[in-house]
Amino acid sequence: MAPPTPRLVVSVDLKKKPWEQVLPLHNRWHPEIPPVAHVKVSEVFRVEMVDWTGSVIKDDDSAADVKFIDLSTVHYLSGPIRVVDKNETPAMPGDLLAVEICNLGPLPGDEWGYTATFDRENGGGFLTDHFPCATKAIWYFEGIYAYSPHIPGVRFPGLTHPGIIGTAPSMELLNIWNEREREVEENGHKSLKLCEVLHSRPLANLPSTKGCHLGKIKKGTAEWEKIAKEAARTIPGRENGGNCDIKNLSRGSKIYLPVFVEGANLSTGDMHFSQGDGEVSFCGAIEMSGFLELKCEIIRGGMKEYLTPMGPTPLHVNPIFEIGPVEPRFSEWLVFEGISVDESGRQHFLDASVAYKRAVLNAIDYLSKFGYSKEQVYLLLSCCPCEGRISGIVDAPNAVATLAIPTAIFDQDIRPKAGKVPIGPRLVRKPDVLRCSYDGNLPTTKNPAASM
Amino acid sequence: MAPPTPRLVVSVDLKKKPWEQVLPLHNRWHPEIPPVAHVKVSEVFRVEMVDWTGSVIKDDDSAADVKFIDLSTVHYLSGPIRVVDKNETPAMPGDLLAVEICNLGPLPGDEWGYTATFDRENGGGFLTDHFPCATKAIWYFEGIYAYSPHIPGVRFPGLTHPGIIGTAPSMELLNIWNEREREVEENGHKSLKLCEVLHSRPLANLPSTKGCHLGKIKKGTAEWEKIAKEAARTIPGRENGGNCDIKNLSRGSKIYLPVFVEGANLSTGDMHFSQGDGEVSFCGAIEMSGFLELKCEIIRGGMKEYLTPMGPTPLHVNPIFEIGPVEPRFSEWLVFEGISVDESGRQHFLDASVAYKRAVLNAIDYLSKFGYSKEQVYLLLSCCPCEGRISGIVDAPNAVATLAIPTAIFDQDIRPKAGKVPIGPRLVRKPDVLRCSYDGNLPTTKNPAASM
Amino acid sequence: MAPPTPRLVVSVDLKKKPWEQVLPLHNRWHPEIPPVAHVKVSEVFRVEMVDWTGSVIKDDDSAADVKFIDLSTVHYLSGPIRVVDKNETPAMPGDLLAVEICNLGPLPGDEWGYTATFDRENGGGFLTDHFPCATKAIWYFEGIYAYSPHIPGVRFPGLTHPGIIGTAPSMELLNIWNEREREVEENGHKSLKLCEVLHSRPLANLPSTKGCHLGKIKKGTAEWEKIAKEAARTIPGRENGGNCDIKNLSRGSKIYLPVFVEGANLSTGDMHFSQGDGEVSFCGAIEMSGFLELKCEIIRGGMKEYLTPMGPTPLHVNPIFEIGPVEPRFSEWLVFEGISVDESGRQHFLDASVAYKRAVLNAIDYLSKFGYSKEQVYLLLSCCPCEGRISGIVDAPNAVATLAIPTAIFDQDIRPKAGKVPIGPRLVRKPDVLRCSYDGNLPTTKNPAASM
Amino acid sequence: MAPPTPRLVVSVDLKKKPWEQVLPLHNRWHPEIPPVAHVKVSEVFRVEMVDWTGSVIKDDDSAADVKFIDLSTVHYLSGPIRVVDKNETPAMPGDLLAVEICNLGPLPGDEWGYTATFDRENGGGFLTDHFPCATKAIWYFEGIYAYSPHIPGVRFPGLTHPGIIGTAPSMELLNIWNEREREVEENGHKSLKLCEVLHSRPLANLPSTKGCHLGKIKKGTAEWEKIAKEAARTIPGRENGGNCDIKNLSRGSKIYLPVFVEGANLSTGDMHFSQGDGEVSFCGAIEMSGFLELKCEIIRGGMKEYLTPMGPTPLHVNPIFEIGPVEPRFSEWLVFEGISVDESGRQHFLDASVAYKRAVLNAIDYLSKFGYSKEQVYLLLSCCPCEGRISGIVDAPNAVATLAIPTAIFDQDIRPKAGKVPIGPRLVRKPDVLRCSYDGNLPTTKNPAASM
Repeated sequence: MAPPTPRLVVSVDLKKKPWEQVLPLHNRWHPEIPPVAHVKVSEVFRVEMVDWTGSVIKDDDSAADVKFIDLSTVHYLSGPIRVVDKNETPAMPGDLLAVEICNLGPLPGDEWGYTATFDRENGGGFLTDHFPCATKAIWYFEGIYAYSPHIPGVRFPGLTHPGIIGTAPSMELLNIWNEREREVEENGHKSLKLCEVLHSRPLANLPSTKGCHLGKIKKGTAEWEKIAKEAARTIPGRENGGNCDIKNLSRGSKIYLPVFVEGANLSTGDMHFSQGDGEVSFCGAIEMSGFLELKCEIIRGGMKEYLTPMGPTPLHVNPIFEIGPVEPRFSEWLVFEGISVDESGRQHFLDASVAYKRAVLNAIDYLSKFGYSKEQVYLLLSCCPCEGRISGIVDAPNAVATLAIPTAIFDQDIRPKAGKVPIGPRLVRKPDVLRCSYDGNLPTTKNPAASM
Repeated sequence: MAPPTPRLVVSVDLKKKPWEQVLPLHNRWHPEIPPVAHVKVSEVFRVEMVDWTGSVIKDDDSAADVKFIDLSTVHYLSGPIRVVDKNETPAMPGDLLAVEICNLGPLPGDEWGYTATFDRENGGGFLTDHFPCATKAIWYFEGIYAYSPHIPGVRFPGLTHPGIIGTAPSMELLNIWNEREREVEENGHKSLKLCEVLHSRPLANLPSTKGCHLGKIKKGTAEWEKIAKEAARTIPGRENGGNCDIKNLSRGSKIYLPVFVEGANLSTGDMHFSQGDGEVSFCGAIEMSGFLELKCEIIRGGMKEYLTPMGPTPLHVNPIFEIGPVEPRFSEWLVFEGISVDESGRQHFLDASVAYKRAVLNAIDYLSKFGYSKEQVYLLLSCCPCEGRISGIVDAPNAVATLAIPTAIFDQDIRPKAGKVPIGPRLVRKPDVLRCSYDGNLPTTKNPAASM
Repeated sequence: MAPPTPRLVVSVDLKKKPWEQVLPLHNRWHPEIPPVAHVKVSEVFRVEMVDWTGSVIKDDDSAADVKFIDLSTVHYLSGPIRVVDKNETPAMPGDLLAVEICNLGPLPGDEWGYTATFDRENGGGFLTDHFPCATKAIWYFEGIYAYSPHIPGVRFPGLTHPGIIGTAPSMELLNIWNEREREVEENGHKSLKLCEVLHSRPLANLPSTKGCHLGKIKKGTAEWEKIAKEAARTIPGRENGGNCDIKNLSRGSKIYLPVFVEGANLSTGDMHFSQGDGEVSFCGAIEMSGFLELKCEIIRGGMKEYLTPMGPTPLHVNPIFEIGPVEPRFSEWLVFEGISVDESGRQHFLDASVAYKRAVLNAIDYLSKFGYSKEQVYLLLSCCPCEGRISGIVDAPNAVATLAIPTAIFDQDIRPKAGKVPIGPRLVRKPDVLRCSYDGNLPTTKNPAASM
Repeated sequence: MAPPTPRLVVSVDLKKKPWEQVLPLHNRWHPEIPPVAHVKVSEVFRVEMVDWTGSVIKDDDSAADVKFIDLSTVHYLSGPIRVVDKNETPAMPGDLLAVEICNLGPLPGDEWGYTATFDRENGGGFLTDHFPCATKAIWYFEGIYAYSPHIPGVRFPGLTHPGIIGTAPSMELLNIWNEREREVEENGHKSLKLCEVLHSRPLANLPSTKGCHLGKIKKGTAEWEKIAKEAARTIPGRENGGNCDIKNLSRGSKIYLPVFVEGANLSTGDMHFSQGDGEVSFCGAIEMSGFLELKCEIIRGGMKEYLTPMGPTPLHVNPIFEIGPVEPRFSEWLVFEGISVDESGRQHFLDASVAYKRAVLNAIDYLSKFGYSKEQVYLLLSCCPCEGRISGIVDAPNAVATLAIPTAIFDQDIRPKAGKVPIGPRLVRKPDVLRCSYDGNLPTTKNPAASM
């Protein structure tokens, strides 16, 4: 009998840069990024991760770091980790890799995080046409709870999860990604059917050698040059999992990932202390460094068995997730609704993105009546355990989306009541979030009715 | 002391047609549809409702009724109900009407419901390009539980709710609706940015005298003619609430509705024994007749106090909802994910509707491996208590949507496992849903990879 | 296809006395009380029930009815109901009868209930040595919610359940009951080891012809005389289920009852809108009339298969219960603890009853600081959804019991806070519960430290 | 801005004996045990703890360590910790100390625990008259989950908590304890009313110099001798909190402890990875070493404000607990019931301890039909998240107690079903728990009906 202390397979030193780590990090998806660690099925192992920016965002009194961040370098991932079975046979393409999250949390000694909105012309976010400035709120952790000096009056338990977990794509899959994303970037504005209230941001994030890190592959080598030009950015979630941002993927969850390369080459990062559905401010979770304790199983031939491809090739699949019984539970929710009519009053057709945008805007306006600035609420709804639902997607022409907020996270009763909203000293919520000016040129959206 | 037995203010007789009821039903929104009942704040009152089609769909062995339904007549609503305060002063425009759902359920003696998909050319649904045929499943209720002879092996407690609850629009608001919906219908195909995988259905449902019922206003009168031409259809949810289809709006919930006309003129209908987020098959809840027990409060001036308009006028608001502690709770969920890449492999930009479509398709394919036909699963996911989430809406170009299904509703373990999916007699699930042929001309979508 | 409207097998008319009902009620357990109805396995059937006292307690302004109640007549039960399988073969001794509660609720038109404490010398309760007076609080129902004019400031959803559900005992089992209860009544004070702080009440309730009702057996006949002398009172829960008072036995629950006589002879009654664990005030739930919708299955030979007898005969068994996913859920609880040291400071040995008594007393004192009288809190803790737990039963000499109260049922924050408990007009909670004087002779317990 | 990494105020080195630690541990309650650390209100601090036996129980293949353990040395506690406010003024007698559990867990590198029953003549347990042998099961942790090689087929998330947390008693309170416990030990068998089925164990655990450890007070000094003779054992929970064994006292909980001495002198220990209500096997939780991250507040004068004494002095109080929203939730429970009739068939009067004993015995017998030995189930019910309730405490003569077991912790469906319990290879659950023989002389209880 031997105690099963999780084996630390990837450690990080927060005093070092991501590329200086003993096991160097990577920030791209590519089949040829070599594994930095090996694990066996059934063993519990521990992976440490820097925050998604690699410590660029500081615990300080300015949002300048957010405003001027170089986004070509995100997200820094730990791995790849090669997975083998009890006979040392690796996971093979076509298998399903079941990854159980046994435990997770902040890195000891680094118990803080941040939520931010990017400048409209450097990253933006879901509501960037309304909120073009870079902002930042710092969160401190007291065990399972987070509170922010910049958003007083709220405190909530974390539903902590990795924003990114995925397997390496095969070359074939990578080519599919690059082609379809290039197509949307090059022709999107002309040919793609787009809702303009949503496309205030770059249409895609194509491979770039700028900011690229490829783990053990040395920068400047020919190999590096080749891979860096091909390797997919980590921003969007894709067939391999990746940046799913599923907020309930916490302790006790299980992820069934398709395997595209020998060994599966599992990578993970972008730890979130907490996130709201949609992660609306983009840098919207409580971003932090952290650790995962994982356990893998291999379901041989599981892709064919369990995943039906949805698209032109057998590679067009998505992972499956299993959510367990261990998460904070709330009994009472205040729910805001949006329909697919935009701020100008224009009707869109069953557009859940527009409907959700209006639901979030409604929630921001409502909560700002309780002593908060709209920027505070925008950040809060990005990171608190709120639920974004597609309630109705068939009642033409309106999609109905809802945003449900647990009332228990506030230190005041936020429900509508007969009688005025209380006004007075107790509602002066200072300080506000740290905010930079917006110096760009893009037009911002005004709510025509807001000042009436 | 007197027991507060809920006062029955609207009763229905299921043996009569909707327009033969003592308090005749209506199926349009218009400020001039006269109230059929009056209630005071704080009193608990009972409203009975026919199913949304007014008994057109039968508990029988054919989906022909679904295929050939005249959709111009839906939804039949009970009301309007005029609300006054303790001093008999009515709710006034600008007030907020807080409506608490004290109780609800099927109509005694009519404990059954149905879930259906319409023919692609007569109503359609979210996945109508994949499933063009009319189908129907009957559900029987055993108290809080529903089971279907057409979808064996599942049984679940209802999260019962009214699909429609709303106040009457003012003439000004009605004009806004009609203009914006006419615009999308007339110019949508040309000018609107649309995702073609979703617009296989009519773009809007404009006012029509055909099938119109206006409660106490007699058909054929000049008044009727005028109103019928203006009155909004009840299909989409809008500023007045209406067809929200929020599945958690069950016992103990509260709805804060804006008031646009004197007396509020509350109408409700479209009772659902249970519904999944999105109500994907369109006739997708377990549709039934039923009753509500309601209690109203008036928050004077509450629209200005609590609802910020989001659009060009102060009328561009949405209701707020409060969800209570009383609903079925599930501990374990299997979660399917979709990204905004469509079945042809084409990349869309942060389109939550496309992402959700792919998530639902993934779930249908997965569950069909456990002994079900895809049509059965499509209906099941429309009506069982599954949750549709917008998980990530910022990670360009992919929106990530998820569909979470409670595993406890199945009589078998539906989680992926090492070893084959069981095949054998116990998985022969008969009978299947009742299905009609599709005789139309519209092209259907094939999943190119499905047959590989 | 035919809708499965639950068949009404026992109806009650609240304008009639229990013995005047078409299907006369009974208030004793005996194998020879003849069935009043028959049901088949798998059918959903409906049973109506009077409140446990048969309408003796009134919705009025006096507790005199409680004080002077004749307790020989409780509890009035509906049934017995004979259960047969699809082949008309009845349930047989040795079988297990699985009874599913498909639905339940108050009787329409009678939506109110009461909670009471009996006079110390006529029934008493768990804390009768502290609270010797008869008291009464009326509760009104607003759908799933209950509120009381006598205990203002609280409102909670009901976890509605039958206090009593059980099968008829065989003659052999009945004899066991009568012998062991006679023994405790006759010799208890001398020989039984008793904690005197708990035995301020009659030790048992033996068969009595006074107040006896035996359903279809006519009073005054020889048969009636014989059975009335033997038939067990319904006060305690026993091997046949009976007065279990398990508060979570609500919609969706299943009860596995042992079968002792042919046909099982299922009886039920004592409907509770809500109850706290322990039902401490004895008439302690929100007592009401009501209905159950049930469905039975027979597990042939199930007693031997699933129930191990615990005692000298194979009849010494207990039912098993299955609790479902549908009940009000609360997120936050305030928990009071008691140890097995009594009010005089005397140490008892691992006595969970004493520990629970102290926990309840602690809770009463605490909550009385928030503007309530102790009598109000005693009644509230009897009927609200509080949880009574045996936390530690092994740490000699102290048992530790806890009482957990959901904080959301109060309209004020009842948690301890730095700063004084608010005192002032808002805490004057009037009216208090209706209370009678105590005119008896038994000594009451004072809390020596309470007045310090 | 500075990150609030919890300050480590008490660390332990598992390679050292409890008395060799840098901050030596103590295993008695006494006002004169000097604090080993100081904390301020609002700061989050970390306390490490050995397991309750100080590493006597090993992760090995024998229960001999359990059988022969010297129980005079338990429980080893970390502390006392002196608490001061922001002005360095200590907590004072009469204050309430609010202790929030921000986080907790096993000690990194020591992720295992054990559950055991003691030999009947050396500690015993709740069912020691049935199960007199010492047994032991080892549990391994995979993050939030525990599984045991000795009880296969179960796995559950921990509801981790400290078994003991308390403040130091004043001399006056200590004297009260010693007197009342001496009284029960000396005269209990004669005068105390006891249920013999429960008092198979020592009646109390009085102060003993044997095995005594007093932290910084050196063994052998006159001070040590004096204090060791007076200091209370840590076995029972008492007015200062102490060994409450409240299983829900996990992350996010808050404990309001009375303060009896200057500085409060908070001590804690006896970490449990998981425990069932009652902790029936005595060494019944999953016992482990661990850490707590705590945050204190002082409510000045809070004892008088919030705690009513229940007994002859103002010191007869109990702590209050607040349970938060973060714990494993289960949807479905199988519930076993017991009434206060003992194994011999004898009737007891409203004795919740007897009723709970019968409920636990019923559950053990039931679950042993699914391939387990009774010893395995006895250990399992001690440590899994099962709930022990006092359901009815007023229905003379029977108390009704229930034990609810979440069905999801088993890898098989444990509910009763028509058709036989499956028998076969999959139910051979080996190995069994490690078990020693019982060599003592006390009579054991047989269940007379078990072999019929």
